[in-house]
Amino acid sequence: MIGRLALALVHQPVLDRSGAVVSAAVTNLDLHDIARVARTFGAGRFYVVTAAAGQQHLVARILGHWREGFGAGYNPDRREALSLVETVPDLDAAVAAWGSRCGAPALPLLTGARRSDGIGFGAARELLADRPLLLVLGTGWGLAPELFTHGWPVLEPVSGGSDYNHLPVRAAAAIILDRLYRSGT
Amino acid sequence: MIGRLALALVHQPVLDRSGAVVSAAVTNLDLHDIARVARTFGAGRFYVVTAAAGQQHLVARILGHWREGFGAGYNPDRREALSLVETVPDLDAAVAAWGSRCGAPALPLLTGARRSDGIGFGAARELLADRPLLLVLGTGWGLAPELFTHGWPVLEPVSGGSDYNHLPVRAAAAIILDRLYRSGT
Repeated sequence: MIGRLALALVHQPVLDRSGAVVSAAVTNLDLHDIARVARTFGAGRFYVVTAAAGQQHLVARILGHWREGFGAGYNPDRREALSLVETVPDLDAAVAAWGSRCGAPALPLLTGARRSDGIGFGAARELLADRPLLLVLGTGWGLAPELFTHGWPVLEPVSGGSDYNHLPVRAAAAIILDRLYRSGT
Repeated sequence: MIGRLALALVHQPVLDRSGAVVSAAVTNLDLHDIARVARTFGAGRFYVVTAAAGQQHLVARILGHWREGFGAGYNPDRREALSLVETVPDLDAAVAAWGSRCGAPALPLLTGARRSDGIGFGAARELLADRPLLLVLGTGWGLAPELFTHGWPVLEPVSGGSDYNHLPVRAAAAIILDRLYRSGT
């Protein structure tokens, strides 16, 4: 079931700390950590969303090092994880690519640490049983509001039961996949 | 209950990729990510274990920047998370410090991705109900064998149900705290 789940890490449009809509820079460790988490839980693909040519080039260089260059021989486990990564210019392209891979339309499942309109993890698993799902994570201070105007479902925030609501996107990705995967929960 | 849980990130003794016992370097992002995860789930302390003076100095510089320097005003949320961090020279010092803070002896709970002798998360929660627990995470290729000779309990590895067993320590910390915190699971 989890095989029809993919992840998208959106670098634009996202918010910055002031609430402005910006393009965020790609972080090397986001690629590694989220690819390894995706591979661990059997997610099918990890789309890195950025339209900036320089950023796409950076991702290509990182992937080249680990998938074909020195890193591929030095750390084959890393190569295996990073083989899931694909760069796309916008979220629509990620949705289309994942749907095309699965042979069925993919549904984006948005995330946001401050959303109060989210569905639970049980409901998300039910969606996933029906159709390919693209879990959409935002960098910076989160996905821009315009992404929430399409009627796509939103996943409830990961809460730790405290008043602190500032998980790294890398940690949120790990916890969300663990919760989706552990179908007993 | 989770308030009597602390984390220790061990940089020595740990294994390298060849299985040799080494001291690993401190990674800036480990401090940030694991501190934010600890704060999110209400863990009481995050001990960074390294005996190397240069590494202790590095941690002190990072903490100084975010707790008192420019970063403290720029990003108060980060200051709040990093306020949990304390540097200690070895694991015994972390156990002693956490026990002293709690006013009761603390029990280390070891972790390892390749251990087959681990207790389940339910059993770990029962331990935590009884006494202060120190969740011990290894950097590099994991905690050195000598740490497993004291009779301390070991937590079962985080499995994603796949054959891939290479989670970042940052992701493992996030998933473990989420599982310990979510007492229904």
